[in-house]
Amino acid sequence: MGLIADRMKNVPKSFIREILKVAESPDIISFAGGLPNPSTFPVKEIEDACRYVLENDGQRALQYSSTEGYYKLREFIAKRYEQKQGLLISPDSILITSGSQQALDLIGKAIINKGDNVLMEEPGYLGAIQAFSVFEPCFKTVMMTNHGPDTDSLEKICKNGKIKLFYGVPNFQNPSGVTYSDKVRSEASKIFLEYGVAVVEDNPYGELRFMGEDIAPMRKHNPDGILLGSFSKIASPALRLGWITAPPEILDAVNTAKQAADLHTNYFSQRVLYRYLSENSIDKHIESIRALYKTQRDAMVASIEKHFPPEVRFTKPEGGMFIWMTLPEKYDSMVLFDAAIKQSVTFVPGKPFYAVGGGKNTLRLNYTSCTPDKIEEGIKRLADAFKNMAF
Amino acid sequence: MGLIADRMKNVPKSFIREILKVAESPDIISFAGGLPNPSTFPVKEIEDACRYVLENDGQRALQYSSTEGYYKLREFIAKRYEQKQGLLISPDSILITSGSQQALDLIGKAIINKGDNVLMEEPGYLGAIQAFSVFEPCFKTVMMTNHGPDTDSLEKICKNGKIKLFYGVPNFQNPSGVTYSDKVRSEASKIFLEYGVAVVEDNPYGELRFMGEDIAPMRKHNPDGILLGSFSKIASPALRLGWITAPPEILDAVNTAKQAADLHTNYFSQRVLYRYLSENSIDKHIESIRALYKTQRDAMVASIEKHFPPEVRFTKPEGGMFIWMTLPEKYDSMVLFDAAIKQSVTFVPGKPFYAVGGGKNTLRLNYTSCTPDKIEEGIKRLADAFKNMAF
Repeated sequence: MGLIADRMKNVPKSFIREILKVAESPDIISFAGGLPNPSTFPVKEIEDACRYVLENDGQRALQYSSTEGYYKLREFIAKRYEQKQGLLISPDSILITSGSQQALDLIGKAIINKGDNVLMEEPGYLGAIQAFSVFEPCFKTVMMTNHGPDTDSLEKICKNGKIKLFYGVPNFQNPSGVTYSDKVRSEASKIFLEYGVAVVEDNPYGELRFMGEDIAPMRKHNPDGILLGSFSKIASPALRLGWITAPPEILDAVNTAKQAADLHTNYFSQRVLYRYLSENSIDKHIESIRALYKTQRDAMVASIEKHFPPEVRFTKPEGGMFIWMTLPEKYDSMVLFDAAIKQSVTFVPGKPFYAVGGGKNTLRLNYTSCTPDKIEEGIKRLADAFKNMAF
Repeated sequence: MGLIADRMKNVPKSFIREILKVAESPDIISFAGGLPNPSTFPVKEIEDACRYVLENDGQRALQYSSTEGYYKLREFIAKRYEQKQGLLISPDSILITSGSQQALDLIGKAIINKGDNVLMEEPGYLGAIQAFSVFEPCFKTVMMTNHGPDTDSLEKICKNGKIKLFYGVPNFQNPSGVTYSDKVRSEASKIFLEYGVAVVEDNPYGELRFMGEDIAPMRKHNPDGILLGSFSKIASPALRLGWITAPPEILDAVNTAKQAADLHTNYFSQRVLYRYLSENSIDKHIESIRALYKTQRDAMVASIEKHFPPEVRFTKPEGGMFIWMTLPEKYDSMVLFDAAIKQSVTFVPGKPFYAVGGGKNTLRLNYTSCTPDKIEEGIKRLADAFKNMAF
């Protein structure tokens, strides 16, 4: 008898982590990561917050705490939903998670039965594919256009077979950089409501818009929508602080699952982050991140336009951290990957983002970790590798 | 169609958390918790460690990190296993978890198929019952004696049906305070090896021995044993730092599950804890915790002997945080609980610690949160409530 449970056989390993190992050499220009630029981390302010919390309430801040999470932090999140998006969400319907990745695990546990149909974007977030795979769903996918999932396909898919759950990243999606238009959000929400599909709206990048206008979340069209958030991209990912807001029945099951999973999220970090948020302007801080990422995004868009031939298509994100590139169909981005490594440049081939296969000729480019000069140099090398591919 | 997954129906809610809500009133003397005494937390030293980490490597300490955990912290753990227990464990076979509770979730995911026989202690740790329940095992239990699980029953159980996994807490068990004798460890290990039972040895309290001699872990008898540890009881629970060490095949599956569950454990806390451990003597710190808990344990043992009649049996732990009380069979500790609340004293009734039912006349008493005076007063009140129980 093998000791490993059957469910683990379906869980893809992260190809990205393998790539990151290759990318550790200092000569390599890496577009493979998905990391925020560390120069944006509020190091000094977090230090001040640590000191304050430990000097004023140290014993409490180092003790066990509640499964739901620090109430003041949940209040902060609720207030921000109201101020920024006009969403009225009670702090009581928010649960703090160990990064928004954990929210995916808890949702999988709380909702997905083996064999349930779970609808993913194509391409979709790899971490969600991994987290849900553990619970052995039957994945379906809906194709992404430049404005979000194709709503005609969406309607057909929902009509053809019971879909229990849809997972999407409407703002500056990982991996594609695509943002759902207001029209797509409204039409998709209508379809989900009609066919009784539970919606998980993940929003790790929403605050990182550097051009265009904010668009209201799908949650606006559907009060029963599950909404996820994260402090990883606007404060620090090491603190592993995210959250989930969901209707009572689901939140109750998520709470039970959370208790079984790790009792509660790191309480010291919750206290420190809350102190940081209450003593500093997070809006001002986010403004500086946006300004930086816009420069990097502009450099990458300009370099691709300059060095790649027009038959290579790519997205032009209005925020977030990623550009998605589609090569002509005959190309294989895995082959390009090997050629690129020889030119000391890396990226993530698109295949792992396709939950049910496909994506051979696609790839993801991250621009938040390099200077504009490095971006120009890296894209030039990548274009050279592309042009030298033989058939 | 209900939205909640079937697996959640089997997961018991923590009765303890409900009790803790009742216990919040300041008049109440609570023996219900399982919290370390916050006066032992190294607040000032953690503050120094935060400052050092942020001032010397702040950007890195706030960035994403590896799923396995901070290598130096894993090295520290490996060295301590060698120094304290003569166990040779490579840092590479250690993975840092969000508290040892998360190790239970990851083991459940990685090993338990629906319907697998999982053997628990009776009474056993509630958090493990909860964590494993999510993966729908068939629980079996083995009765605890004052020296660990009854080995005759153990052999019968293992012979009678394939047991995939055994979970136990050999040192100062939660809830019973019982420590497995060396003989029981050796005999039990022989049985597990003979019948191919995977062993999970959880050890959150092992460092908190205040009398008697340390006993080698079962892992000594079985190199394939899975061993869990935690910094919650010797440093701070809020940091949620624990670990798992397991053979390669299992660790590989656990790593994949960890990646899907939350990418990695809070890296800032790992860095801070490691700095704390490298700049301070954890042995000295543990010595002071042991001294405090021994005073509290002695006060509780003396008070029970003084106020309770001899037909009420109780354990006399050599370490850890709990005493287990067994009332004469006709008594119901839930009824005592209601009577005790009226006397402003609380404890945890024993039933939730029985994975397959039973334990009506048992209860758990925690002594780490009260002064000896309060312990004497609380036990007196509890004995009064007991004596007044009518039939």
